[in-house]
Amino acid sequence: MDSIEVPAKGELTLFQNNYPHRNYSIDVAVEEFTCLCPMTGQPDYAKFQITYIPDEILVELKSLKLYLQTFRDRGITHEDATNEIYDKLLVNLKPRELTVKGIFNIRGGMSTTVELSYHQGRD
Amino acid sequence: MDSIEVPAKGELTLFQNNYPHRNYSIDVAVEEFTCLCPMTGQPDYAKFQITYIPDEILVELKSLKLYLQTFRDRGITHEDATNEIYDKLLVNLKPRELTVKGIFNIRGGMSTTVELSYHQGRD
Amino acid sequence: MDSIEVPAKGELTLFQNNYPHRNYSIDVAVEEFTCLCPMTGQPDYAKFQITYIPDEILVELKSLKLYLQTFRDRGITHEDATNEIYDKLLVNLKPRELTVKGIFNIRGGMSTTVELSYHQGRD
Amino acid sequence: MDSIEVPAKGELTLFQNNYPHRNYSIDVAVEEFTCLCPMTGQPDYAKFQITYIPDEILVELKSLKLYLQTFRDRGITHEDATNEIYDKLLVNLKPRELTVKGIFNIRGGMSTTVELSYHQGRD
Amino acid sequence: MDSIEVPAKGELTLFQNNYPHRNYSIDVAVEEFTCLCPMTGQPDYAKFQITYIPDEILVELKSLKLYLQTFRDRGITHEDATNEIYDKLLVNLKPRELTVKGIFNIRGGMSTTVELSYHQGRD
Amino acid sequence: MDSIEVPAKGELTLFQNNYPHRNYSIDVAVEEFTCLCPMTGQPDYAKFQITYIPDEILVELKSLKLYLQTFRDRGITHEDATNEIYDKLLVNLKPRELTVKGIFNIRGGMSTTVELSYHQGRD
Amino acid sequence: MDSIEVPAKGELTLFQNNYPHRNYSIDVAVEEFTCLCPMTGQPDYAKFQITYIPDEILVELKSLKLYLQTFRDRGITHEDATNEIYDKLLVNLKPRELTVKGIFNIRGGMSTTVELSYHQGRD
Amino acid sequence: MDSIEVPAKGELTLFQNNYPHRNYSIDVAVEEFTCLCPMTGQPDYAKFQITYIPDEILVELKSLKLYLQTFRDRGITHEDATNEIYDKLLVNLKPRELTVKGIFNIRGGMSTTVELSYHQGRD
Amino acid sequence: MDSIEVPAKGELTLFQNNYPHRNYSIDVAVEEFTCLCPMTGQPDYAKFQITYIPDEILVELKSLKLYLQTFRDRGITHEDATNEIYDKLLVNLKPRELTVKGIFNIRGGMSTTVELSYHQGRD
Amino acid sequence: MDSIEVPAKGELTLFQNNYPHRNYSIDVAVEEFTCLCPMTGQPDYAKFQITYIPDEILVELKSLKLYLQTFRDRGITHEDATNEIYDKLLVNLKPRELTVKGIFNIRGGMSTTVELSYHQGRD
Repeated sequence: MDSIEVPAKGELTLFQNNYPHRNYSIDVAVEEFTCLCPMTGQPDYAKFQITYIPDEILVELKSLKLYLQTFRDRGITHEDATNEIYDKLLVNLKPRELTVKGIFNIRGGMSTTVELSYHQGRD
Repeated sequence: MDSIEVPAKGELTLFQNNYPHRNYSIDVAVEEFTCLCPMTGQPDYAKFQITYIPDEILVELKSLKLYLQTFRDRGITHEDATNEIYDKLLVNLKPRELTVKGIFNIRGGMSTTVELSYHQGRD
Repeated sequence: MDSIEVPAKGELTLFQNNYPHRNYSIDVAVEEFTCLCPMTGQPDYAKFQITYIPDEILVELKSLKLYLQTFRDRGITHEDATNEIYDKLLVNLKPRELTVKGIFNIRGGMSTTVELSYHQGRD
Repeated sequence: MDSIEVPAKGELTLFQNNYPHRNYSIDVAVEEFTCLCPMTGQPDYAKFQITYIPDEILVELKSLKLYLQTFRDRGITHEDATNEIYDKLLVNLKPRELTVKGIFNIRGGMSTTVELSYHQGRD
Repeated sequence: MDSIEVPAKGELTLFQNNYPHRNYSIDVAVEEFTCLCPMTGQPDYAKFQITYIPDEILVELKSLKLYLQTFRDRGITHEDATNEIYDKLLVNLKPRELTVKGIFNIRGGMSTTVELSYHQGRD
Repeated sequence: MDSIEVPAKGELTLFQNNYPHRNYSIDVAVEEFTCLCPMTGQPDYAKFQITYIPDEILVELKSLKLYLQTFRDRGITHEDATNEIYDKLLVNLKPRELTVKGIFNIRGGMSTTVELSYHQGRD
Repeated sequence: MDSIEVPAKGELTLFQNNYPHRNYSIDVAVEEFTCLCPMTGQPDYAKFQITYIPDEILVELKSLKLYLQTFRDRGITHEDATNEIYDKLLVNLKPRELTVKGIFNIRGGMSTTVELSYHQGRD
Repeated sequence: MDSIEVPAKGELTLFQNNYPHRNYSIDVAVEEFTCLCPMTGQPDYAKFQITYIPDEILVELKSLKLYLQTFRDRGITHEDATNEIYDKLLVNLKPRELTVKGIFNIRGGMSTTVELSYHQGRD
Repeated sequence: MDSIEVPAKGELTLFQNNYPHRNYSIDVAVEEFTCLCPMTGQPDYAKFQITYIPDEILVELKSLKLYLQTFRDRGITHEDATNEIYDKLLVNLKPRELTVKGIFNIRGGMSTTVELSYHQGRD
Repeated sequence: MDSIEVPAKGELTLFQNNYPHRNYSIDVAVEEFTCLCPMTGQPDYAKFQITYIPDEILVELKSLKLYLQTFRDRGITHEDATNEIYDKLLVNLKPRELTVKGIFNIRGGMSTTVELSYHQGRD
């Protein structure tokens, strides 16, 4: 893996998949995510589970962490945050498969999970 | 998401799905639910797991909580409570898929789970 | 649900399914069950998991509990007890689907689970 | 234990301790408790752990359950609910020791436990 | 350990402690216990934790199991059952220390634990 | 079930399936198994999970336990032990389906599970 | 409890303890806390456990939550954050006892817990 | 199993599958794995789950352990390490099926799992 | 630590404590132990927890494992096995403190734990 | 906290305790530690739990991690490794209290924990 330059803020660093001839999955369990509730301005907390089968491109983990931190001061619904992260990864990685799951902490006695999946050739 | 007015008591606040062109699931784990046993008048307690794939409409979480609270003083069987919540969501959200699971606390050494599922184009 | 008369000892109280037009499942986790070993006369203990998709008939939970208590003083193998409970429910509920699982406590370093399933139109 | 009459609503049924010559503890884990938030009117949920060393008097469990249900429609803080239950038991049971612990469900990312203890001859 | 004759029904088989010159504890976790509720006649289920420091006498485990089975058809409160088992062990084993804990299954949303302790020279 | 004679050492006691007209599964979780490593002579420990759909024959549990004890003093690899137990059950029970899973304790930071499955009409 | 005015940002709302004549504890488990690492500017995440025995004053939970949110954009070490929260509570509540425990998420394979305790008349 | 010679460093010791006429799986849970981060030189830690259906060849466990230790001083990404181990096993064992899963410890609040699968006749 | 010769069968290999000027504890959790029931000849299984504060002598772990294996073919009660292991360690290690706990697997619905403790200057 | 220079390899970076007038504890749970067995050269793995009450000095976490990495290629017994880490912290931090616990992975069916404690004015 060649040396990686620091990307622009909120941009993902990408590197070359050395095994594009085979299908294999990469799963990243993000334990720490916070954004703001768009209605009350109060902090929301979540975990994210990101799983993909790469085609030609892998995402570098530190840049993924920094990208997810750009939500820290944004007011955004659970549904929109999860869709936006999914779109970002879909556009940048062009993966064969992708699942993004946002698991938001309990509010008012209810916790919410939003899940999106992409399979190349479907959807 | 536009500002939301307080709905009539027991009515669900609905808002627009910003991503209707894709199938994705929203899962709400309701930790707190109580109603009354229709035979004894004694309180029953349950958890609910509500999962749906939205079409054009999402449900706002606080109004869902308030709707579920309308069961607090009603005498109703496990089966009827779960079916009624399922009907309410089906009629209001017109989702592509919907599962409602009511998990009722142990009574007489037995706990009961009632589960309903809807898939657009089936059933 | 209309008022229910106390059934004859060991008989199940049945009531009308208000939602026969849809398939939904009811799962009853029975935490407490005891019978006797037919060879040694020693008590056996088990949990039962009973899951069914009702057609026209639901079982009332208290009568199910009382029915299961009729095994308390009977000598019966794990296999026969589970089959007999399954038959009782099949004949009385005429369900669309039924699964009965008996999970017997450890004896001689071994625990035993017996499981039966019925699907209308199959078997 | 002699037959017990149904007590006045919210009153505890008491019966005689058959072993007052020895110290022993009775612990009741109450899995189901609900009251209302005095500020918002929204339901609160809690578990209670009640432990006592009886002197001459034991509490009958069903009446304890019915007493705890009198909080269902009352607006009361976590602190006051736990203190009030503690006082009720102290006055009625005159126990040698008593601990009451109210464990309230998470609100705004925080769960609260209130605990009171009494030891005869201390406090 | 010499061969042991089958004791009279409900009697404990005792054998000699080979190490009476030292204090050591023996803890027996009884996973299976059932008796009847003295008010409703319905079965109750419990676990028992029995811990003792023997003086001259040990209890044989199979006879302990058979003794505990004598409660199977008796109507008895949680408090009385636990006290009676405690007395039986105290009289037969004359242990240096003894704790008996009866942990009864949930009824009406509440589970109950009764605990007695004896220390030679105290109580 | 008719009375069962003690089988020859290491032989399985078989009895008649009373419900051969239906498919149902029997699962035996064996918590205690030990054999010897064929290379070092050191004890190995395992758990076994045995699941089968009987045809005409059931296995009696005590004889299964005694059969598994015949491995106690034998040097045998994980793979061979699991295959041999599987063969024994296949030949004796002639089941419709059979799965044998041997889960061996950690050695050198690695634990090993060997699993075999048979489906009548396949394989 | 009298109505509570919204406090100045970062200030705690206090209310009167109705039971100052007895010692009892209040434990608040804060599931959500985030600040910034003073060296790298990266987000840190923690849970806090706050336990106190009140004297005359209780803290209102929502204001406690808002106070803890003032750390969201501050660069501060684990040790200083925990000490500062402890000081804030000590000065405002003047409690009889106080424990503050900050449990910070894993960094570089290590998680850190900082704990402070105060007992009136000691320290 | 015939006696096994110590293989060259990093080479796998192979032995003959005694049951090649049937499909069965062998699962090795490797609790201990460490390598170095290729960018920072810092140690990385992982668990590996290796599952295969053998054809003619089995791998000896100690040599597998020694092979995995050859990564201890190597700088290598999560993706490359998992692919390389997979290739080594594929070439040496020529299995009917193979899955290799590398589960890497949390870094920067994120843990990563890389998973590869091979099915003879597919891929 | 100097090289260690293989001890006589069942003897413990001892080595020098390099830090005898301070009190520190060594805890060994033995996951695998088996002996025979002295009455039935059937295998018993247990875990052992051995904790000691060394004086001048430490025990080498492999010899401890081999010593514990000498019980594999012996018929011995839970109480005697635990006392014998305790005596062996007390005589050989002459520790400042020693605790031996034998935790025997469930038999007839009951599991048994035997525990002995030694404190230099006491007992 | 002032900026910290990179310490010499294996040296701890220390910084000033801002709250030396009070006793508080800092607990570091080290999830990743590896060294070599001094007899076989094979890798050993452990977790460490380090807890101290600082006097004037705190340890910087990254330097602690780097110090613990110096054991990666050293052959050392469990007892010596734990004692050495304890000595390093005692000499550098001069804490009021210190506990070091090394929890080593299972070897030969046995896991070992070594624990040392220091209290100023004692020992």
